[in-house]
Amino acid sequence: MNKIRIDAYGLLEKVRQEKPVIHHLTNWVTIYDCANVVKVLGASPVMAHAKEEVAEMASIASSLVLNIGTLTVDFIEAMKSAAKSANKKGIPVVLDACGCGATELRNRKTAELLEEVRIDIIKGNASEIAKIAGEDVKTKGVDAAKVEKNLIEVARHVAKKYRCTAVITGAEDIITDDKQVFILKNGHPIMASIVGTGCMAASVIGTFATVEKNLALAATSGLVCFEIASECAAKRASGPGTFKEKMYDCLFHLDKATIGTMQKVEACE
Amino acid sequence: MNKIRIDAYGLLEKVRQEKPVIHHLTNWVTIYDCANVVKVLGASPVMAHAKEEVAEMASIASSLVLNIGTLTVDFIEAMKSAAKSANKKGIPVVLDACGCGATELRNRKTAELLEEVRIDIIKGNASEIAKIAGEDVKTKGVDAAKVEKNLIEVARHVAKKYRCTAVITGAEDIITDDKQVFILKNGHPIMASIVGTGCMAASVIGTFATVEKNLALAATSGLVCFEIASECAAKRASGPGTFKEKMYDCLFHLDKATIGTMQKVEACE
Amino acid sequence: MNKIRIDAYGLLEKVRQEKPVIHHLTNWVTIYDCANVVKVLGASPVMAHAKEEVAEMASIASSLVLNIGTLTVDFIEAMKSAAKSANKKGIPVVLDACGCGATELRNRKTAELLEEVRIDIIKGNASEIAKIAGEDVKTKGVDAAKVEKNLIEVARHVAKKYRCTAVITGAEDIITDDKQVFILKNGHPIMASIVGTGCMAASVIGTFATVEKNLALAATSGLVCFEIASECAAKRASGPGTFKEKMYDCLFHLDKATIGTMQKVEACE
Repeated sequence: MNKIRIDAYGLLEKVRQEKPVIHHLTNWVTIYDCANVVKVLGASPVMAHAKEEVAEMASIASSLVLNIGTLTVDFIEAMKSAAKSANKKGIPVVLDACGCGATELRNRKTAELLEEVRIDIIKGNASEIAKIAGEDVKTKGVDAAKVEKNLIEVARHVAKKYRCTAVITGAEDIITDDKQVFILKNGHPIMASIVGTGCMAASVIGTFATVEKNLALAATSGLVCFEIASECAAKRASGPGTFKEKMYDCLFHLDKATIGTMQKVEACE
Repeated sequence: MNKIRIDAYGLLEKVRQEKPVIHHLTNWVTIYDCANVVKVLGASPVMAHAKEEVAEMASIASSLVLNIGTLTVDFIEAMKSAAKSANKKGIPVVLDACGCGATELRNRKTAELLEEVRIDIIKGNASEIAKIAGEDVKTKGVDAAKVEKNLIEVARHVAKKYRCTAVITGAEDIITDDKQVFILKNGHPIMASIVGTGCMAASVIGTFATVEKNLALAATSGLVCFEIASECAAKRASGPGTFKEKMYDCLFHLDKATIGTMQKVEACE
Repeated sequence: MNKIRIDAYGLLEKVRQEKPVIHHLTNWVTIYDCANVVKVLGASPVMAHAKEEVAEMASIASSLVLNIGTLTVDFIEAMKSAAKSANKKGIPVVLDACGCGATELRNRKTAELLEEVRIDIIKGNASEIAKIAGEDVKTKGVDAAKVEKNLIEVARHVAKKYRCTAVITGAEDIITDDKQVFILKNGHPIMASIVGTGCMAASVIGTFATVEKNLALAATSGLVCFEIASECAAKRASGPGTFKEKMYDCLFHLDKATIGTMQKVEACE
């Protein structure tokens, strides 16, 4: 592992200038937070799931973020339609495999999505990505379960199998397109004490994917910004409630010096 | 343009005393914020969208707020049913044309609503209202696009065409029933850095429409309160996250002196 | 009435250690807050409503929370399926009768749920529970209306009729399984100035029901924690907006001494 520097701030600046539209079909629990985190980054979220409009909406967006957290069969069909439109236009598609492993429906629908449309970035916690990698994992609802295997190998396996970028979030994040592997050591334990951190991470990744074609670098840069903002907020917060509001403030004001000083990225190629 | 004084505080006091029920069929992103802004005003929000109950729920409410932000075909049908009930009872119906212009579905369903039921107040950003006025506008998801035309003329055109009150929100808000035109210069740029400002504005307007029959005056008064509270909150906030919570506090505590000192309303008749 | 001490902290500690999964089919307004309050208690919320997975999800959970606040006919069918699975597994099922009394649909569907599945805890405000008790109540949307009758008798009637624990929330809460009656005098008026307090209360009760088989005691203990945290937050807040975030902080940090000093529980057996 070698410490490296990535220009996360340069990409954040690009987001702030270009204000890309990020189309979401996400879950009903964290839909506000997904939209709001995109907004405080300076981009423009749009949430639309009607089967009659998703393809058109995706075609005016710069990236598409899918999240199966509160899936239904119809909702997954709308996701496929949006993703096919995104694939056609050539914009990146992010899949948050929220709760994959918890039920047969989630497993089957995740598999269908990965088979029927091109997913550019798959994000999940250790147990969700392990499930996609074919490991035998017992999840605990939507929270991460222990995974015994080497997680870097699990992530690479998914990246190779689906020719995508795989992201495992946790105390340390793993981001890989099989060739490059980034390990991100930013973040704060309080992030695990609120609902929505994982979902927001997917939206942040989807936002940064609009300004950098190397998607492993884009995902890592987005997470660097999100997690450094979270560290700054944790210092100012008295608990998980005030943490979230301050995280938005910190992300909104995040500057070059802070990112430069605080980032903890390692790479093994 | 002449500066005028309106009694926004008098209407706020009426809301606090009468605690009207505001029935919403709104979008899934900002549904909590729509409900909560009504609550901190002292009124009673109710969100109900089942086709079997919307007419009955609208009939026990004092106004109805519709928002197409995350529309589906079925949801629009429920809106029509609720609006017909509201029309029959004679309570005001507010339409937030959220994202109108972004897709064909939104354009078509907005047109259907305006044709099949009576809408008393249409609210949107510049590009949404311009689209309804028949202008050729390319929107950018749900955020406002540049509109070249004179916005006062656009608003008057919509007000005349649909015999309603038209509200264009932005750095300056335009409120008109064709005869009266109010220009509101309150508010703060940070309002554009969070998700939900526009949706909450529609809920505030719907709340004030229950206590004042001159709907242009009601809408202006509601926006005066909402935007002055936002200005007060912006001074106390360290960014968009803490801003929102403080906006609720400021709106909850908003008093006569603050409204009197801070309001910036102009009228041209 | 006799003042009694209950070991609410002991149950909170159990929640924090066991981190039970709480499956919700709840309403779309407060779904984030329901999930988040469970999370800050240290447990693990999961929201899933697809008819194809609700039974399976309930079977991996430790309790099930149902809330009819934004019901549809299909959603109620999914609730029944989840509840049947929960009944089979023997985990507690909580029903938040949100808005019961407001429409015929809500009345009918509440009756169906109570008839077709076993509900272990029914929670509502005075008018909702009075409606279930068969009183003639005119509700005002989802907010409580005045109920003339003796509320303890109303709650006992519901507890007896459905062989369950009945909870009436309000300035004073009544919790009874017919045999035991607890009166809880904690809480703060500001709780009634935000949306979601009642819904969160049901989630808290569902969480505590996983660690204590005496469900009246479990419900009372959960409400003790929630309402003491709210009192602490009210002291630190400048209004209803900042109150909610601080309530999460206070609940997250809630300790034995605070609960011991502040709890106000009375019992009449």
